[in-house]
Amino acid sequence: MDQKTVTFLIKCPDQEGIIATLTGFFFGEGYNIISLQQYTNVKEKKFFMRICIATNRQITKDLEEKFEKLSKDFSMEWKIDYGDKIQKVAIMVSHTSHNLYDLLSKYKEGMLPCEVVMVVSNHEKLRPVAEMFGIPFYYAPVSNETRLQQEKDLIDLFDKNKIDLIVMARYMQILTSNFIEHYPFKIINIHHSFLPAFQGANPYMRAYERGVKLIGATAHYATEDLDEGPIIEQDVERVTHESTVGALKSIGADIETMVLSKAVKFHLNNQVIVDGNKAIVFPET
Amino acid sequence: MDQKTVTFLIKCPDQEGIIATLTGFFFGEGYNIISLQQYTNVKEKKFFMRICIATNRQITKDLEEKFEKLSKDFSMEWKIDYGDKIQKVAIMVSHTSHNLYDLLSKYKEGMLPCEVVMVVSNHEKLRPVAEMFGIPFYYAPVSNETRLQQEKDLIDLFDKNKIDLIVMARYMQILTSNFIEHYPFKIINIHHSFLPAFQGANPYMRAYERGVKLIGATAHYATEDLDEGPIIEQDVERVTHESTVGALKSIGADIETMVLSKAVKFHLNNQVIVDGNKAIVFPET
Amino acid sequence: MDQKTVTFLIKCPDQEGIIATLTGFFFGEGYNIISLQQYTNVKEKKFFMRICIATNRQITKDLEEKFEKLSKDFSMEWKIDYGDKIQKVAIMVSHTSHNLYDLLSKYKEGMLPCEVVMVVSNHEKLRPVAEMFGIPFYYAPVSNETRLQQEKDLIDLFDKNKIDLIVMARYMQILTSNFIEHYPFKIINIHHSFLPAFQGANPYMRAYERGVKLIGATAHYATEDLDEGPIIEQDVERVTHESTVGALKSIGADIETMVLSKAVKFHLNNQVIVDGNKAIVFPET
Amino acid sequence: MDQKTVTFLIKCPDQEGIIATLTGFFFGEGYNIISLQQYTNVKEKKFFMRICIATNRQITKDLEEKFEKLSKDFSMEWKIDYGDKIQKVAIMVSHTSHNLYDLLSKYKEGMLPCEVVMVVSNHEKLRPVAEMFGIPFYYAPVSNETRLQQEKDLIDLFDKNKIDLIVMARYMQILTSNFIEHYPFKIINIHHSFLPAFQGANPYMRAYERGVKLIGATAHYATEDLDEGPIIEQDVERVTHESTVGALKSIGADIETMVLSKAVKFHLNNQVIVDGNKAIVFPET
Repeated sequence: MDQKTVTFLIKCPDQEGIIATLTGFFFGEGYNIISLQQYTNVKEKKFFMRICIATNRQITKDLEEKFEKLSKDFSMEWKIDYGDKIQKVAIMVSHTSHNLYDLLSKYKEGMLPCEVVMVVSNHEKLRPVAEMFGIPFYYAPVSNETRLQQEKDLIDLFDKNKIDLIVMARYMQILTSNFIEHYPFKIINIHHSFLPAFQGANPYMRAYERGVKLIGATAHYATEDLDEGPIIEQDVERVTHESTVGALKSIGADIETMVLSKAVKFHLNNQVIVDGNKAIVFPET
Repeated sequence: MDQKTVTFLIKCPDQEGIIATLTGFFFGEGYNIISLQQYTNVKEKKFFMRICIATNRQITKDLEEKFEKLSKDFSMEWKIDYGDKIQKVAIMVSHTSHNLYDLLSKYKEGMLPCEVVMVVSNHEKLRPVAEMFGIPFYYAPVSNETRLQQEKDLIDLFDKNKIDLIVMARYMQILTSNFIEHYPFKIINIHHSFLPAFQGANPYMRAYERGVKLIGATAHYATEDLDEGPIIEQDVERVTHESTVGALKSIGADIETMVLSKAVKFHLNNQVIVDGNKAIVFPET
Repeated sequence: MDQKTVTFLIKCPDQEGIIATLTGFFFGEGYNIISLQQYTNVKEKKFFMRICIATNRQITKDLEEKFEKLSKDFSMEWKIDYGDKIQKVAIMVSHTSHNLYDLLSKYKEGMLPCEVVMVVSNHEKLRPVAEMFGIPFYYAPVSNETRLQQEKDLIDLFDKNKIDLIVMARYMQILTSNFIEHYPFKIINIHHSFLPAFQGANPYMRAYERGVKLIGATAHYATEDLDEGPIIEQDVERVTHESTVGALKSIGADIETMVLSKAVKFHLNNQVIVDGNKAIVFPET
Repeated sequence: MDQKTVTFLIKCPDQEGIIATLTGFFFGEGYNIISLQQYTNVKEKKFFMRICIATNRQITKDLEEKFEKLSKDFSMEWKIDYGDKIQKVAIMVSHTSHNLYDLLSKYKEGMLPCEVVMVVSNHEKLRPVAEMFGIPFYYAPVSNETRLQQEKDLIDLFDKNKIDLIVMARYMQILTSNFIEHYPFKIINIHHSFLPAFQGANPYMRAYERGVKLIGATAHYATEDLDEGPIIEQDVERVTHESTVGALKSIGADIETMVLSKAVKFHLNNQVIVDGNKAIVFPET
């Protein structure tokens, strides 16, 4: 039984009959819908759907062409994932290692449906970690003066290796819009605070000074504006006045790892549709 | 614009084409689907759907008859709520007042889409609370010897008042299967622990003795087996070794109120489908 | 056995021997320490202590005088609560009722160790709620032009009634520094967001637009700067893209009630010491 | 400035003057108390203290002897950690790798104050993980027939290597009381449920069948009774009806790693005192 699972991610203006039409299309084509998730934003009249279909038949470009016609009728934006190509991931790091260890461990355990192609860093410090896990490590130092060149080199490196997703795992350098525009919604960043609180530098120190009773971490798509992109996942942990800044960093590290690896998994599993500056995240099926 | 919103709750064995057929049915009948939530348990081959449709037209028994035919084809169990009849609720209490205050406050604020018809108790203690909120109070004392008669009287009282939902808000008497069978999945109970931990009596004391680091509360449909029915909602709060039993009760009270009122709202909003001993809870739309 | 429990709240620069000296003082005076909580901020060299002592003897001003001498040696700031006077509370509201219902319910249940003397509002809307609970209601309308006069009248009213704590339970008017300076760290406000995110107006709408995955509420002492004062307690709940602004407000209401009533209880129980712009909150004993 | 930090963990019946006497003792001996945490269980009349003292002086057995005398007066049980000896840890595993990866990653990052001396397993499967991290791996197969011998060999191995703490990181074999008695409160186990719910085998499957809305994990000291020992730490995550058993295992894996590594850290940092079947856990300082 050589079943293929194909995933469609669809968004369009909400219109009467859209669910009936879409489901009728796949059923009429002889595909079985194994998973259907949709969300209608009634107020803003927007419709979002994630649909997984299965068939024994060979799924050819034929389906895409028929669907293309349908999509024009409803002004749909859509993506199709045939599930036959593994996504290639690059992880970018600086000094902090906990996210890198966590992502590479989960990767080794087979928990991340991707191929981690490389680890890139502006420091040498974490090279041994990448090497321990058998992942190629690229040293890409950068300064304000060399930033544009470094980004150009990274774009070349990523494009040559057909990178599908860039994970900034506490990579602490600003990315210019030059870089970000190359990978729209293909860069996931972990920010070590509960956004939109404490955007920018030193969030743990600032959380400490504010005397918050909870700290958090947020995984989001990197956009031109620092820490402003669509939030994919975030979580918090309780702290007290007794928590030193060091304790906050230590407690925060665990939240960062959980949140970032969840967000990366959601993305790799095609569970995310970006809507404006928000991320619709369909639950795992 | 006199739009009616009608809610269908449907469950049946999963079959090919079921989503397409169902959505096609309503669309074909000229109704607009304003909200569709469904869940397929792939492993157990079960399908569940909550569908809200809207129309300006008069929705008549006509729709029910046509749907009835369709439902036979798919071996569906289904319920329809025309949204034109307010559900009548009876709250049962004993000594503890926090759930009663919370439910009646939310009711007064218009946060519970129902009519609270009465408060029933095996003690007089909480009569003043019901009266303060202007709700009729019925004193229904009970002992082991009088239990069956008391339950018979309650069934008469509830049936006479066309009670749709019974909320056991820390009502501390056992209900016999005699009573429960009258109201299948129409009795919501709050148990002051995180089920299935600490079923039965004195859960806070037992939580204290076990030295747990979290305590919780669980709202579930009452079934014949004590504290075993389908769980609708549950939540926990962190505690430490410093928490006395009194502190646990105090912290627990807040969890109980939040969990019970959420569960009651889910039920009143037709967000719940019972599957075996589990409750499918569709998110609020 | 006519035991009195007296609570001291103490803060001073951290110095060698301070715990030994303090505990030795009370023990030497023949008092039994029934509860001692302290926290040393090593980095900032600050010491905080909450100590509850018990005795059968009559505690006279004698103890205060002896302690005064000791406190000078260590440059202490301190407060003493003999536990023989019930704190008088005024609750200020505007349109939103859930916090008011919750505080008055908990008050009626005896869960708030205080006397709720009055409810004050700039609208008439919530008068029936106060009256239902048998609490005097004062209507204090205000506009930009009448603000200073209204605040003057409120100060007169509160001072005449010897109000110890003012709880702003979704009172939506700005308080000028003129008012706040009268009641330093005696005004607790609930802000319907997880501070410092979404300070100011319409936090639920802004949380919705930001697409956060968690929303929260924060109880803090009101200071001159809006939503900037020491945080006493805060909490969050998970939300998704499916949550409309209305759903956020509904979910948020439960967080607001829990957080505000917790903060009020902490304050009334002398569990809080303010340090700069932070609140040290000793756990319940 | 060659400061030593010495930690005392003390428990005894609560008695008048105990805090004053203890703090007075250290201060009188010329030591500075840098951290003092204590908890009095008033109802059960038990007293617990964790006190960290610092001095430039050489701390000799002298202190222990003087303290010994004091401790007899108050019937204290006590432990002293001079902080000059690193604790040796053995990790036991079977098939599941996420806890092992997490502990070894945190160890490599310097987040666990210990020396991980070995990984022991009844299967060969996880040898590559240990070797990747450069930790010696011991294969210790076991069956019902060979259990006592295997445990004897393990005891020999652990004693020879002076193991201070054994971490059962999803080691799935029962340990007999023969083994456990050798290491009282020196074996930390992670159970993949929120105890006391779902003790024993297959907790994720049983959580799925019960239809709980939260799943959890619990780290506890292993005692003779399976899953019954003092709970050190536990936590939960929200799940829904949509979560398959596989999804529960995946979500649960993250909770297990966080909870187990926290518990191990608490133990290594001397933050835990066992009281009967409960664990007093002093917050991190």
